[in-house]
Amino acid sequence: MTSNFNASTDALYQAIKGLPIVSPHGHCDPIWFSQNNAFKNPAELLVIPDHYVFRMLYSQGIPLADLGVGSRGQDADPREVFRLFAAHWHLFFGTPSRTWIDYVLRETLQIKLGLSAFTADSIYDQIVEKLAQDDHLPRALFDRFNIETLATTDTALADLGHHKAIRDSGWGGRVLPTFRPDGVLDAIDPNFVQNLRDLSQLTGCDLGSYNGYLEALRSRRKYFVAMGATATDHAIEVIHTEFLGDPEVIYQRLRGGTGSLDDARRFYGHMLIEMAQMSVEDGLTMQIHGGSRRNTNVNLLDNFGRDMGADIPVSADWVRGLEALLNRVGNNANLRIILFTLDETTYARELAPMAGHWPCLRIGPPWWFHDSAAGIARYFDQVVETAGYYNLAGFNDDTRAFLSIPARHDLWRQGVALHLAGQIDKGLFGRDNAEDLAQLLATDLARNVYGLAG
Amino acid sequence: MTSNFNASTDALYQAIKGLPIVSPHGHCDPIWFSQNNAFKNPAELLVIPDHYVFRMLYSQGIPLADLGVGSRGQDADPREVFRLFAAHWHLFFGTPSRTWIDYVLRETLQIKLGLSAFTADSIYDQIVEKLAQDDHLPRALFDRFNIETLATTDTALADLGHHKAIRDSGWGGRVLPTFRPDGVLDAIDPNFVQNLRDLSQLTGCDLGSYNGYLEALRSRRKYFVAMGATATDHAIEVIHTEFLGDPEVIYQRLRGGTGSLDDARRFYGHMLIEMAQMSVEDGLTMQIHGGSRRNTNVNLLDNFGRDMGADIPVSADWVRGLEALLNRVGNNANLRIILFTLDETTYARELAPMAGHWPCLRIGPPWWFHDSAAGIARYFDQVVETAGYYNLAGFNDDTRAFLSIPARHDLWRQGVALHLAGQIDKGLFGRDNAEDLAQLLATDLARNVYGLAG
Amino acid sequence: MTSNFNASTDALYQAIKGLPIVSPHGHCDPIWFSQNNAFKNPAELLVIPDHYVFRMLYSQGIPLADLGVGSRGQDADPREVFRLFAAHWHLFFGTPSRTWIDYVLRETLQIKLGLSAFTADSIYDQIVEKLAQDDHLPRALFDRFNIETLATTDTALADLGHHKAIRDSGWGGRVLPTFRPDGVLDAIDPNFVQNLRDLSQLTGCDLGSYNGYLEALRSRRKYFVAMGATATDHAIEVIHTEFLGDPEVIYQRLRGGTGSLDDARRFYGHMLIEMAQMSVEDGLTMQIHGGSRRNTNVNLLDNFGRDMGADIPVSADWVRGLEALLNRVGNNANLRIILFTLDETTYARELAPMAGHWPCLRIGPPWWFHDSAAGIARYFDQVVETAGYYNLAGFNDDTRAFLSIPARHDLWRQGVALHLAGQIDKGLFGRDNAEDLAQLLATDLARNVYGLAG
Repeated sequence: MTSNFNASTDALYQAIKGLPIVSPHGHCDPIWFSQNNAFKNPAELLVIPDHYVFRMLYSQGIPLADLGVGSRGQDADPREVFRLFAAHWHLFFGTPSRTWIDYVLRETLQIKLGLSAFTADSIYDQIVEKLAQDDHLPRALFDRFNIETLATTDTALADLGHHKAIRDSGWGGRVLPTFRPDGVLDAIDPNFVQNLRDLSQLTGCDLGSYNGYLEALRSRRKYFVAMGATATDHAIEVIHTEFLGDPEVIYQRLRGGTGSLDDARRFYGHMLIEMAQMSVEDGLTMQIHGGSRRNTNVNLLDNFGRDMGADIPVSADWVRGLEALLNRVGNNANLRIILFTLDETTYARELAPMAGHWPCLRIGPPWWFHDSAAGIARYFDQVVETAGYYNLAGFNDDTRAFLSIPARHDLWRQGVALHLAGQIDKGLFGRDNAEDLAQLLATDLARNVYGLAG
Repeated sequence: MTSNFNASTDALYQAIKGLPIVSPHGHCDPIWFSQNNAFKNPAELLVIPDHYVFRMLYSQGIPLADLGVGSRGQDADPREVFRLFAAHWHLFFGTPSRTWIDYVLRETLQIKLGLSAFTADSIYDQIVEKLAQDDHLPRALFDRFNIETLATTDTALADLGHHKAIRDSGWGGRVLPTFRPDGVLDAIDPNFVQNLRDLSQLTGCDLGSYNGYLEALRSRRKYFVAMGATATDHAIEVIHTEFLGDPEVIYQRLRGGTGSLDDARRFYGHMLIEMAQMSVEDGLTMQIHGGSRRNTNVNLLDNFGRDMGADIPVSADWVRGLEALLNRVGNNANLRIILFTLDETTYARELAPMAGHWPCLRIGPPWWFHDSAAGIARYFDQVVETAGYYNLAGFNDDTRAFLSIPARHDLWRQGVALHLAGQIDKGLFGRDNAEDLAQLLATDLARNVYGLAG
Repeated sequence: MTSNFNASTDALYQAIKGLPIVSPHGHCDPIWFSQNNAFKNPAELLVIPDHYVFRMLYSQGIPLADLGVGSRGQDADPREVFRLFAAHWHLFFGTPSRTWIDYVLRETLQIKLGLSAFTADSIYDQIVEKLAQDDHLPRALFDRFNIETLATTDTALADLGHHKAIRDSGWGGRVLPTFRPDGVLDAIDPNFVQNLRDLSQLTGCDLGSYNGYLEALRSRRKYFVAMGATATDHAIEVIHTEFLGDPEVIYQRLRGGTGSLDDARRFYGHMLIEMAQMSVEDGLTMQIHGGSRRNTNVNLLDNFGRDMGADIPVSADWVRGLEALLNRVGNNANLRIILFTLDETTYARELAPMAGHWPCLRIGPPWWFHDSAAGIARYFDQVVETAGYYNLAGFNDDTRAFLSIPARHDLWRQGVALHLAGQIDKGLFGRDNAEDLAQLLATDLARNVYGLAG
């Protein structure tokens, strides 16, 4: 217990600390749970896949290849990678990565030594030893973490074979897919034209017409629903929606590879509305992650690929950007659309007033750079007064770092306790109400908004 | 006293808690005070006219018609409306609406029960009983609230008959009109052309020329001044001012109904400057409420009308937007222009530096969604260091919910006490100075900036 | 010690309070230290040169000429100016100016009276007496202030004669120039064409070609380096960089005075990249101060000149604005570019993610209006979680008010102590680590990022 936890905060925290983990959005690989192979080594567990970690090391001049990242890093010795990481552990002072990894080492892996250049080898060896044990296999950890539901993120073309294997395995873990169709909606994707061909092959639909394209998308959504999906997901840089009078024309240009950037932008804006309309039909909760400018470092993209730490937030305009979509489906009280922003200025100015009005909208939890102690505090400070608590969507860990899941939910739950204890201090409500709200924020909102209850 | 009030905060609060209420901007209906009829029932008092309340219920799927809102809601049973509201009281946890309504029930209406589905009927009956009593008539409440001045908001075409009736009544309450001419300045208003005809008829001016139009506006301002007005008010979405070389041309197009959207935008930007120049002449304090995108929900607008909770803030650029206006009149130290923003990012970036330079500018208090405990704290945190206290405009309740006026001023005064006690803690000044500043913020700045003193 | 300083905060503060002052960016005049003449009088010391002070007085209707500002103020009696300032000292409640000037009067000038209209004359006389004493001459103060390094800001055309005189004087004070070439890069400067002529004469380079122009810039940088410079500086309103395919064409238009505004904007965006490339060659740290709209008050500019308090921040887009520059030089781990923003919304959204990725980037300290207690707190709150501490650039006082330098560093050091004590409370690290970070933030980061160490 840290000294900013008074008795009231601690009581609220203790009441929710042990609740099951509901993880309705993230990027774990389902193969971990279908194959249940041991994780390889500490570098591949904690450093190489975590762009929060290697971007910080890179920012201080450490080459990515030395960190084992990308094809250029494939020959890096994992022990050397871990040493390099440990020797620069001071760079992470004050960051949530440090909090999460400290938690993983101490709570999850039961390492008693503090991480430093001097302890790197010893900790490396200890982790290697643990990873070889049955109780550190992915399924065992999943169970130990008390995960009630874990949603993955899957392209529209995914065959969901691993999800099927998990369901057929007899293991009780609930791992659900999420429908992320950007690759077949966003013609800026360099593989767009090929993706449409694959979509046609996969569904048997004739994508020669816009209607066939819609049919293929419906078919894929149906398959995802059958495989347990309860949600879709979209990532967009500039928020834009518009309903095209004649989408066929632009569709044909984009499908033929002759569309302009503006065609692509408008078409994607149109398809977000189509997706929302399909959600009205099939009940899938729609997630929109807006405002990240992807791959701003061209050299890194060319040499190391996507998701290398060079995705940077830009300012967002949710009000004008979603107006077309909301005016088609927004008054539907059965639809659920969750908005995730990287522009915190939109919390109080846009998202809270919008979610406090439109029946379909919910505000997603602090995302990415803002999923942190101060980020959580700013979120509550700015959304609750206008949106209340019931227009929020609970918590997402949104991670590909499986071991950090309990750490991330724990940080959120501490943030919830701190916030609610502060509200009690301000006289806004009493302990009983705060306890109800704590449970709501820790688990129930996520269950409800994603249709995961019962 | 809540536990975030230490002795120092409480002392500052007690010193200003009982000061008279100066309410220089709001939306009360003058008919309440000219006719002094009893308020109808609890639903019409607390739910139906309050868009803060019904927007939140609507956001959780409750149809507006069930809440008695709009023509579609006119047959709703007020007791059922109140029950529906009470049953969803939990949606308001953490919102200022809950704080205000709690205060109204407890302090103003002396209801001892807490609001819930179970107490709805009993509370309803108790309120009905109170409203029938003489000491709950509008004038009696006005006096009991210790309101020194209450300004209403009135269109340029208003005859101010109720204001006249109040003055002639012998009752001592000071209820003043405010000149809000948007309907005759902003050609985007669907009634603009008709409004000009009405303006001509009302003033006897010939609106066939731009000069006649200006003359009519001067005439109306003069009438408002004669009726006690001390201020004007404008609401604009995108901040834009420019001084047209030849306004006549655009004026003629707009008057003839053939102007473009851009004509309308530019003309309104020009007329804001004309209004500021008239304020230099007649001394009316100018209020600019900027950055609300109105009626974003077209379906709601069509079926229920304006002010239904679908007005959403957008980002603002006060610096470039006001540059033309300020470069014509801004160095005039006798002019007063108060800026109200819904984009809190402009507090520290734009408004505080601007008000800390231009002699005419003052920063309005936190507005609308930000008139809340955390909103007030963010306001002080972000404006004072650059603008000081003397470039602020004190407090506005800006409400059409008459009963909530004391609650809103009380929340502000608590926020003032918390802020100033924090400043004492930081060693910025002592208790004596803080007490002076508390009174300044509670009443004196509003009196001075709106010319209501003496 | 104020009451928001607990024991832990105070211990951290005491550990760094007495460290030397590293001042790597500011606007002191080197003539003060080359000639070492006594400062003239209290008005010229504390009021007339300080636009933080006179803008606030102006905002409340006090004419600038009465404050001794500009050519119109040259006949103002300094005692009257000081009286006017003292009589309005209440306007500064809550501002950092009040904190700094209080510190200067109490700590630096050892004045025991509190400032007010009643004490103005007495304080004036006491200061006059002090300024005449040897121990209040510029060099004596520099030594007493324990300034390790003081960087000035100098145009590309500066002969640096006073810097030379300081070096030749035998006095040990380290006063370094900084290369600020905006006047020869930004064709919007009304003196641009003449500046190029002067640049040609000064360097002997033929500016008839773009290559000659680059050569002249290189030559000037070399001279600055020889004179001890370790950094360059740029001020830009709208962040824009682009690498022109054929800069010669635009260069010729601008040099001939026939370029358009867009030419000027594009060329400056190009030259920022050239400057960064030259920094890769010569090792000068590059500073970019972005987002101030200069001289928004045309009347003041015409009558009083630049830097009169009418420079107002506007919103910034660092991500798109720097993309071209960063994609040319940003992966260079030896380059240092420091970004200073007036748009605090970019701290968490843009600057921290960018500095947490690009090897060359560091985030400058809170600048101008935000160099204040609350501004410093917001800065740490928003940058540390994503950028850590090692991607920051320490502190700059950025002042032309020489006497305020200790006060400004003291306010920063208090802010550092408050922040780090808060981090300890949150359990993020212990006292030992906090002490290391405190020293890092107080002096070492500035030394390292500006190449001033050793």
